[in-house]
Amino acid sequence: MANPSPGYSIQLRVGTPAGLTATSELVQAVAETGAVVTAVDVSESTPDRVLVDLTCYAASTEHADRVAAVLAAREGVEVFDVADRTFRMHAGGKLEIVPKSPLRNRDDLSRAYTPGVARVCLAIAEKPADARRLTVKGNTIAVVTDGSAVLGLGNIGAEASIPVMEGKAALFKQFADVDAWPVALDTQDTEEIIRTVKAIAPVYGGINLEDIAAPRCFEIERRLREELDIPVFHDDQHGTAIVTLAALVNALRVVGKRLDEVRIVISGVGAAGHAIIQLLLIEGARHIVAAGRAGVIHRGERYDDEHRAWIAEHTNADGVTGTLAEALVGADVFIGVSAPDLLGEAELASMAGDAIVFAMANPDPEVDPVLAARYAAVVATGRSDFPNQINNVLAFPGFFRGLLDAGAVDITPEMLVAAAEAIASCVHADELNASRIIPSVFDPNVSRAVAEAVAGAAARGEDAGRVEPADAAETAGSGARHEEVAA
Amino acid sequence: MANPSPGYSIQLRVGTPAGLTATSELVQAVAETGAVVTAVDVSESTPDRVLVDLTCYAASTEHADRVAAVLAAREGVEVFDVADRTFRMHAGGKLEIVPKSPLRNRDDLSRAYTPGVARVCLAIAEKPADARRLTVKGNTIAVVTDGSAVLGLGNIGAEASIPVMEGKAALFKQFADVDAWPVALDTQDTEEIIRTVKAIAPVYGGINLEDIAAPRCFEIERRLREELDIPVFHDDQHGTAIVTLAALVNALRVVGKRLDEVRIVISGVGAAGHAIIQLLLIEGARHIVAAGRAGVIHRGERYDDEHRAWIAEHTNADGVTGTLAEALVGADVFIGVSAPDLLGEAELASMAGDAIVFAMANPDPEVDPVLAARYAAVVATGRSDFPNQINNVLAFPGFFRGLLDAGAVDITPEMLVAAAEAIASCVHADELNASRIIPSVFDPNVSRAVAEAVAGAAARGEDAGRVEPADAAETAGSGARHEEVAA
Repeated sequence: MANPSPGYSIQLRVGTPAGLTATSELVQAVAETGAVVTAVDVSESTPDRVLVDLTCYAASTEHADRVAAVLAAREGVEVFDVADRTFRMHAGGKLEIVPKSPLRNRDDLSRAYTPGVARVCLAIAEKPADARRLTVKGNTIAVVTDGSAVLGLGNIGAEASIPVMEGKAALFKQFADVDAWPVALDTQDTEEIIRTVKAIAPVYGGINLEDIAAPRCFEIERRLREELDIPVFHDDQHGTAIVTLAALVNALRVVGKRLDEVRIVISGVGAAGHAIIQLLLIEGARHIVAAGRAGVIHRGERYDDEHRAWIAEHTNADGVTGTLAEALVGADVFIGVSAPDLLGEAELASMAGDAIVFAMANPDPEVDPVLAARYAAVVATGRSDFPNQINNVLAFPGFFRGLLDAGAVDITPEMLVAAAEAIASCVHADELNASRIIPSVFDPNVSRAVAEAVAGAAARGEDAGRVEPADAAETAGSGARHEEVAA
Repeated sequence: MANPSPGYSIQLRVGTPAGLTATSELVQAVAETGAVVTAVDVSESTPDRVLVDLTCYAASTEHADRVAAVLAAREGVEVFDVADRTFRMHAGGKLEIVPKSPLRNRDDLSRAYTPGVARVCLAIAEKPADARRLTVKGNTIAVVTDGSAVLGLGNIGAEASIPVMEGKAALFKQFADVDAWPVALDTQDTEEIIRTVKAIAPVYGGINLEDIAAPRCFEIERRLREELDIPVFHDDQHGTAIVTLAALVNALRVVGKRLDEVRIVISGVGAAGHAIIQLLLIEGARHIVAAGRAGVIHRGERYDDEHRAWIAEHTNADGVTGTLAEALVGADVFIGVSAPDLLGEAELASMAGDAIVFAMANPDPEVDPVLAARYAAVVATGRSDFPNQINNVLAFPGFFRGLLDAGAVDITPEMLVAAAEAIASCVHADELNASRIIPSVFDPNVSRAVAEAVAGAAARGEDAGRVEPADAAETAGSGARHEEVAA
């Protein structure tokens, strides 16, 4: 059975005979099912009956049903209501759109709306760049999806993807005061997605692409970057690459190795894997071998898609061939953005001493992190129930904060690197150790550090003339399988 | 010179020699320019100098400059800062997107985002209608424009239209707790607008079309109504028609005439005029004559556009021809949604006794309302500085509140009529008089009354089977000129 988790948190309203041990017996009965009781409140009490609100983490919906059934089967106990706290949190949606200042009277109305607003409109008509200063554009981004590759759920469509986009928007606001709006599109046609995003772009200061299947996501990102004058970020690529690099920088510090010397094996050559390779190369890694489902990518093979062809050309200088397991022999670093349960003890044991293992497949990693920790010096995953969670929320809010603050029109590799280094630097030298290579997602300093680093890189980029990011046109394609990483 | 108004409200920071009459002299100097002083605060004071913050309404930006110049020219006076309060209110935009519940800890994150959110996504994938219950869709509408006919400013484009759309969204939230998001499109192509709105529709429970030029707006509205399963409202048509009918119902009560007996002359056959005619016919008006720029619309003429042809067919049973002035002789009601200064004393004098004049051209009405009041029994305009302001804000927030509460998929004529009657009923019998035919835009009861009326009509419509609104397909076209009404 899976572990009980807050994602399956339920609240039960239960009537039970009064008595000294009434609530403790209920708690024990729930605990015996394997659930974790997190709160017990007596909401009503009479001489012979009490009404108890009991909150617990279950492991699944079946488990939640069993908890209710176990309680209902007890002598004298009635279960009045079982509320799923996750669904309750989603009722009515998770976002609202509120005026920054209230419209209390005629004076307010005359300035926020007609007739006063006309002067603001004319000012923007005369100087369109002022839209960033005088409208929501200056602080607002679109979280765009076509619902084709949502979390690990696959192609569930636009409507069903909205809760994820809302959650993302909530994180943007909470962590970096960026206003973000869900744009869930009722189309999965590349050209129509591009056309639609361009059409709605005037209101936004940036575009965050999210959960769009490969290879479509590469083409969409490339074209929008070319055709829009606001930055376009693909979180599944850029966000993942930033946080992975941040974690690797600190992991290398822990084991005392250098990025330009270590042998790195990457499992997964989808959106995330490709972006990670790009960023590691920029940062100075020289020994990277990447493996897809068909084995190691190397120059001796012809690849139909540009994406794998680019990887073959830019990695694996020694011409390693064969399986992932073969490539791992003697490797210092494993980075997995692929699929569950690809590695066993033999592969782990074959790696170099003081190995680093990042097993980020979501929700189930490439290797059991507890097992991996027996062999590797540093282990990280995408999961919140193990140390070293490589979570994109460390990157995307602060990254867009920095872009908006700088009024950036494009995203450069320098910004990605600066963001990664900022995240890494939030783990101070005196707290850095094998189970603390990455800051907590709730560390309030991270998004500010990232924002300042990105805005700084933007300013330097302008001084040095426009710095173009690595050209995705040459690298798009791939994606026979959607290789995803924890968001 | 125009009247001073809050739309040109400025705040000046002024240093002046200390003295008993220091501030009163400043106030007098400002008042002598024709500005209206609304606040004076001494923000700093030393034995020989005071620093004064002076707020006033000016009539124009030139006037505002003159106010500053007049003060600066005074002996010993320094003007440190002139802040335009309208622009200050727009700085940074007027809306923000906020999470309904904060994400404080891992437990919150696990329910609002991964992994808990996955179960909510799957529930919607299984039953898409649940998106209304579990996402923002249930309470959110899009305020869609292409920036082609913004206020009286004309075709100023997407960016420059955003402040108006934000203001509208703020009104939706403030008056009816409807979340509304500005969708300002970087295209003015009918097909592309339709395609884009359809693509972004999954997130929205309704579409409010706004400030889109005729005749394009008719086609867009008709097609979206056919092709989407959420209601599509064109405020320039439906909103204006609702509030006009509400005002007319009460005006007729004041003069003791009946809708089915009065002779009504409408000036303006654009989006608003056409919608008003439709609604008046549904409500039982039998004697309507409409005039465009080329004179009265009648059956003896052939009209190329469907829109005027429909009006010719459904109004003017007596076959009146000629000019607007000729049509007005003996008329009981004038409704203007056209252009400034079309009527003079002679035309007013030629109307029937106890005439009703609604001069709603924006910002300058068809006739000076002070002049009109010398001849007519009831006068209304779109302006806030005269009694009886016919303002769409009385209709649209409550109308969408009702649509969303009912989960309506379409807008019916019954809903429009019910909304108008609800607005009219908010002026109680004991307060009804010639200068009080329409409630204040700040009357907190109006939007609730409208919402209940619309939701009630929706419920009756479902009981009676799907009621289709008058088919706009037969009525689209027209618009040689954009005839607008106060929003």
